[in-house]
Amino acid sequence: MDQLIYAVPAVGVLSLLFAFWKASWVSKQEAGTDEMKEIGRRIQEGAMAFLAREYKVLAIFVVVVAGLLAAANMSGDTQSPLIAVAFILGAIASGLAGYFGMKVATNANVRTTHAAKTGLSPALQVAFSGGAVMGMSVVGLAILGLGGLYILFSGMFSGDNALLTTLNVMTGFSMGASSIALFARVGGGIYTKAADVGADLVGKVEAGLPEDDPRNPAVIADNVGDNVGDVAGMGADLFESFVGAIIGAMVLSLGFAAVKDGDLNPVILPLLIAAAGTVCSMIGTFAVKTKEGGNPQHALDTGAFGAAGVMALVTFGLAKWLWPVAGTQVGSGPVVLWWHVGAATVIGLAVGVAIGLITSYYCSMGKGPVDSIAEQSKTGTATNIIAGLGVGMQSTALPIVMICVGVVAADAVAGLYGVAIAALGMLSTTGIQLAVDAYGPIADNAGGIAEMSHQEEVVRERTDKLDAVGNTTAAIGKGFAIGSAAMTALALFAAFMQQSGIAVIDVSSPLVMAGLFIGGMMPFLFSSMAMKAVGAAAMEMIEEVRRQFREIDGLLEGTAAPDTAKCVDISTSAALKKMMVPGGMAIVTPVVVGFCFGPEALGGVLAGVLVSGVLMAIFMSNAGGAWDNAKKTFESGDGFKFEDGSMGSKGSDAHAASVVGDTVGDPFKDTAGPSLNILVKLMTVVALVIAPLIASDVFTPFLNF
Amino acid sequence: MDQLIYAVPAVGVLSLLFAFWKASWVSKQEAGTDEMKEIGRRIQEGAMAFLAREYKVLAIFVVVVAGLLAAANMSGDTQSPLIAVAFILGAIASGLAGYFGMKVATNANVRTTHAAKTGLSPALQVAFSGGAVMGMSVVGLAILGLGGLYILFSGMFSGDNALLTTLNVMTGFSMGASSIALFARVGGGIYTKAADVGADLVGKVEAGLPEDDPRNPAVIADNVGDNVGDVAGMGADLFESFVGAIIGAMVLSLGFAAVKDGDLNPVILPLLIAAAGTVCSMIGTFAVKTKEGGNPQHALDTGAFGAAGVMALVTFGLAKWLWPVAGTQVGSGPVVLWWHVGAATVIGLAVGVAIGLITSYYCSMGKGPVDSIAEQSKTGTATNIIAGLGVGMQSTALPIVMICVGVVAADAVAGLYGVAIAALGMLSTTGIQLAVDAYGPIADNAGGIAEMSHQEEVVRERTDKLDAVGNTTAAIGKGFAIGSAAMTALALFAAFMQQSGIAVIDVSSPLVMAGLFIGGMMPFLFSSMAMKAVGAAAMEMIEEVRRQFREIDGLLEGTAAPDTAKCVDISTSAALKKMMVPGGMAIVTPVVVGFCFGPEALGGVLAGVLVSGVLMAIFMSNAGGAWDNAKKTFESGDGFKFEDGSMGSKGSDAHAASVVGDTVGDPFKDTAGPSLNILVKLMTVVALVIAPLIASDVFTPFLNF
Repeated sequence: MDQLIYAVPAVGVLSLLFAFWKASWVSKQEAGTDEMKEIGRRIQEGAMAFLAREYKVLAIFVVVVAGLLAAANMSGDTQSPLIAVAFILGAIASGLAGYFGMKVATNANVRTTHAAKTGLSPALQVAFSGGAVMGMSVVGLAILGLGGLYILFSGMFSGDNALLTTLNVMTGFSMGASSIALFARVGGGIYTKAADVGADLVGKVEAGLPEDDPRNPAVIADNVGDNVGDVAGMGADLFESFVGAIIGAMVLSLGFAAVKDGDLNPVILPLLIAAAGTVCSMIGTFAVKTKEGGNPQHALDTGAFGAAGVMALVTFGLAKWLWPVAGTQVGSGPVVLWWHVGAATVIGLAVGVAIGLITSYYCSMGKGPVDSIAEQSKTGTATNIIAGLGVGMQSTALPIVMICVGVVAADAVAGLYGVAIAALGMLSTTGIQLAVDAYGPIADNAGGIAEMSHQEEVVRERTDKLDAVGNTTAAIGKGFAIGSAAMTALALFAAFMQQSGIAVIDVSSPLVMAGLFIGGMMPFLFSSMAMKAVGAAAMEMIEEVRRQFREIDGLLEGTAAPDTAKCVDISTSAALKKMMVPGGMAIVTPVVVGFCFGPEALGGVLAGVLVSGVLMAIFMSNAGGAWDNAKKTFESGDGFKFEDGSMGSKGSDAHAASVVGDTVGDPFKDTAGPSLNILVKLMTVVALVIAPLIASDVFTPFLNF
Repeated sequence: MDQLIYAVPAVGVLSLLFAFWKASWVSKQEAGTDEMKEIGRRIQEGAMAFLAREYKVLAIFVVVVAGLLAAANMSGDTQSPLIAVAFILGAIASGLAGYFGMKVATNANVRTTHAAKTGLSPALQVAFSGGAVMGMSVVGLAILGLGGLYILFSGMFSGDNALLTTLNVMTGFSMGASSIALFARVGGGIYTKAADVGADLVGKVEAGLPEDDPRNPAVIADNVGDNVGDVAGMGADLFESFVGAIIGAMVLSLGFAAVKDGDLNPVILPLLIAAAGTVCSMIGTFAVKTKEGGNPQHALDTGAFGAAGVMALVTFGLAKWLWPVAGTQVGSGPVVLWWHVGAATVIGLAVGVAIGLITSYYCSMGKGPVDSIAEQSKTGTATNIIAGLGVGMQSTALPIVMICVGVVAADAVAGLYGVAIAALGMLSTTGIQLAVDAYGPIADNAGGIAEMSHQEEVVRERTDKLDAVGNTTAAIGKGFAIGSAAMTALALFAAFMQQSGIAVIDVSSPLVMAGLFIGGMMPFLFSSMAMKAVGAAAMEMIEEVRRQFREIDGLLEGTAAPDTAKCVDISTSAALKKMMVPGGMAIVTPVVVGFCFGPEALGGVLAGVLVSGVLMAIFMSNAGGAWDNAKKTFESGDGFKFEDGSMGSKGSDAHAASVVGDTVGDPFKDTAGPSLNILVKLMTVVALVIAPLIASDVFTPFLNF
């Protein structure tokens, strides 16, 4: 029955063909007037230029790290220098996922604008198809890569340690994916926020231009930024999550492999679950359809939740079919029966949905938290900021409780393997989830193009409607991302302990406690670096935009064109320069701690970064989201009704205060916040990769206390 | 040689007599004109009324908890219901420390104003003497209480477990002190910030009154708040720290007690170190003298650092004299020699000073971090806020590294006992350190009284000068507080494991990991509650002050008096109402987790709250301090010179942005931040108190996974 493994890369290829088919369909759609095409072309060029430069920088990094990995893994019973190949492939696959997504997103945006001239339904089709290309490319590349590597290496290695060596090598793929993801998220986040602040602060506020006005020099950079940050960054992010969850579950299945009784090797079950989720996602995309006048939100929900629901059943089916009938166990752990695997998946899905709903509650207009920020805007900026920070901090409580319930429940059902399966269950339908996520920035961009190319009012209205929906679905997706990050990191953490041969990580040991402190501190340091980078890049952008308004005659009158390329270049350079230190820190820290202080101290660092990283990620993302919607509360309809009955509308002092809150929230929710999940997993994967090298039976730490 | 223990309460009595002598001296000073006396009287009345109401509320809490403690400890080999008595005494001593300090501070403020008419030197004498009363009362009560209880109980209990029972009972004293401290800090923090915001936002900004103008209805509440928050809150805080550090070191000495060889029982060494530090502090106060025209900063530094330096030598001397010559060890731990004890003290002092200097760097005018916030104020409020948050997050890195170095070094020297001694070393000169800290709000109040009673310009100048100094010394004190909190909590944590009979707390266990997440989340939830409470109370105050300006005829013209009592009442009620939930949460959480999930899960919670609490405390305190001084940068001298060469002065847009930053920072640095250190220790002490009840050999958790 182990032949089933060949289905995994086959589904990967199928998924990529599906993405290719969708991409061709998008390309064949009409792109509209020459002006629209020109704007679309400039956005695409800027985005592709950024990717090209980013990948060039990262290529050096990949080659150097691959060399070090190969050198460090030349000998050892369970190691192989081939890990370098897996690392490079992981990095390339992550890069490709970003490239495909970006290419089709920048094709789809202008075509969505054009389709919106006809109606809402065709515009939804184009935008969502663009998102689907991204989603299916990401999962297709992931399971093609992992499935292919597993087949290749498990055939290549032999002897008692074959399986262990195969998995050790495959962690290289995960590390490649995670490191590119971190750079892409941080770089993309810096890019998009620098451009955004420049376009808003000088163009909108100082020069009084409307949103997306073509006279604004930073407006192209701003639209490029939406693609660079939200599409490419997000693609690399979810690629990393998906791969990490699969690898984590595979490594934790190792114990079961020993007791395999003629049935399926349990190690490949996570790959099969991922492949099944990919098929469910593909099917789900067909459900995303709406009639003219229908609610696009409903269409997206049907697709995403339908896929997840079917997937839960499929997991039970797969487990029933493939799992040893009498169950199996690791060491003295619980006996895991087939339905335990299904139950763990359901636990994972339930926790993901719960966190998503909580997130959505804390960030939605009309709900208590956002209203409280709007209310406090009445007494000025300071109270708005304090309220937003308070909401963000408070919003950590329930998601953390849900994560704990999920971890303890999944563990009760099937041990740490259950935790890993729960994380994988949440992410199994990443394909369609990411399609919904990536659809957002495409619709956003389409609106920008409609504005810049002076389309009729109704076109912008339709794209705005498209842009506004999908938020709940996206919030659930965020819940899945956070919950799965915590659980995956925990699984990888357990895998790290298993591979480095340590039985316990005792926090009462001073060295572990020191590690816990250092790890806990890293998300704070990392966030401060990301926010500083945004600040510095935004200042540069502000000065350039001011310079252009000052020096280019006729720019404000519309008789001269702005030098948009210069602004694109500023964002690009700043992003590439400033992403190196925080990204590098994430890779270097586990290596230094591991070799200098040993695996226990490193375990402390990982536990610290996990707890503090998840907390800071929730805090920063939700504070940013809540500030954003508090601002929108004043801007939508008649504005916000204060407790004393008076109204605050667009242009009021309270609205002005809320705009400041939104600006503070931007680097929170778009730069630092989303990077932290990756930081946590990257550090854990790096630890996992070096685990055999620092295992207590082969190595003495340089600083031995 | 065990008779030496009687020296401990004797020094405590001496210290209280010293405080009494200083207090009488202050009372005998001239209080100035009738107007000054009247203002001083109103501040004192408001402050005392708050304390009276606060203690009435807390009395109920203390009685209930004491009853529960007695009931829970009725049986058991190492327990005694007398723990309830120790708990009540700890609570009363903490309350007394706050009461004495507040009484003399509100006596000293008006007398400092009067003395400032004569010169700087007499004003320094009065203000510092007031602070010294506070400092010496706190340490006097602590060692009198702990020394007395030790003598009493070690004589009362007999048999093999006598010493263990004595220490278990004494943890009740620490818990009493910590719980009152948390309520006092949170309540005081809410009080002072609500009054501050009300006085500033309406009085200064809306009505255009100068600082401390007598027509401002909230101005008395504001001055009361300085005493309630900074004096009483701080006194309870340091009382708690001092007691916790001593108890932590005593419990960790238990292992040594078994090998006592006719020499001193090592368990009482921590008490002797604390007593010696108290004597050094008393001597240090005599060094605080300045000539007219001299620098008061220099006088304060001489006293504080002189005392700490002498204390380091004294510790070596004490250890040399009393420690077993051949050294001694706990189990298979390191053999601890006499000079190891001294070395651990020096490590503690060095770490404290280093953290203090780092804190001071991040929060001082003219240094990089504060300047960067000032610079970013140029582009508006949003960039000022982002910069401040970034500085706060970044400032966690080095102090955390120092704490880790300290923990690992102290552990290398003398195991966990060394960590506890290092923490105690930092705090041994709490007496004079607290005198310097409490001197600040007295000088601040003196300035307010000078303003309200229309003194000559020179008087205000002198009090401002007094107020401005002592900042570096206070920053070092803050460093000691943070470093010692982390180390004391770690020592108490080790003590908890010892008493609950668990050998390791393995973070890879899902239950422990869940505990780590829950513990890590608590400082976020706690901070959000504190900040929300300030926000709500401030809103109420703002509306009351606006109402008075609107409804009291002649108030702005100075012909009618404001209803200051009403503002005092608003702050008082809000503080008392809003302190209950966050304070209660800190006590209930360890109890619920311990009884439901067992000691390992509780250990996870403690580790989580320790790491995240210390990080958030540093982040919030330093961000607040940096914002404050960024604002002051614009206000002092010619203002701030931007990078482009232009100047930002008082009244500029950049200054306005920095005022918002300062307001955001207020609840950070004065309410949430300083409470977190206590939260961490209180939760650990509660865990230590219930440790014998949930020990794995006597108890099965209700929810057993």
